[in-house]
Amino acid sequence: MEDRVRVSILMDIYGKLLTEKQRNVMDLYYNDDLSLSEISELTFTSRQAVYDIIKRCNKLLDGYEDKIALMDRIFKMRDAKKSILGELNKVKCADKDSKLILKNIKKSIIDNF
Amino acid sequence: MEDRVRVSILMDIYGKLLTEKQRNVMDLYYNDDLSLSEISELTFTSRQAVYDIIKRCNKLLDGYEDKIALMDRIFKMRDAKKSILGELNKVKCADKDSKLILKNIKKSIIDNF
Repeated sequence: MEDRVRVSILMDIYGKLLTEKQRNVMDLYYNDDLSLSEISELTFTSRQAVYDIIKRCNKLLDGYEDKIALMDRIFKMRDAKKSILGELNKVKCADKDSKLILKNIKKSIIDNF
Repeated sequence: MEDRVRVSILMDIYGKLLTEKQRNVMDLYYNDDLSLSEISELTFTSRQAVYDIIKRCNKLLDGYEDKIALMDRIFKMRDAKKSILGELNKVKCADKDSKLILKNIKKSIIDNF
């Protein structure tokens, strides 16, 4: 996975554990694609401090994932979900009611997992 | 949900974000059901410090859940899983192959969600 994508996903999951300032810098760097100098100007912070914040946040996010492993669980569930939905499409139902139940089950799997 | 059960679940999810000492005290209190005095003796820590650690850890765990909400997601998924498995039992299959596919889907849902 591309580093930028990985960090974005980790920010979605663990971003709230960072401070507002940290979140802001990470957002400007990874989502708005600004340079260190641009972020430095925008946040009234030295370029070096911006660099340090990004480095520290990456370490924090990796640490959270090492300990909670939610991104890993989400990816595994996504794979399982895809495979289950594929298998469900192969099931031949005996009647209309069963077809409807199966349709609702698919929707529920998509919505909940 | 009983407070003790709630804390146990939060410890399973976020326990690794606590220090080893904090985890140890929480484990002795919530899982081994020891009193503050007993934990105090075992850990060479004052009774007041043990009390403070437990109070602080509860606050930390609640804070993590407020921010990451993994326990909430797990409970919602558990409900959805139960409901989906119940609905799957109502599906009437047209042939043996479909029955087998459905059986494997159920197993996959139980294992993965």
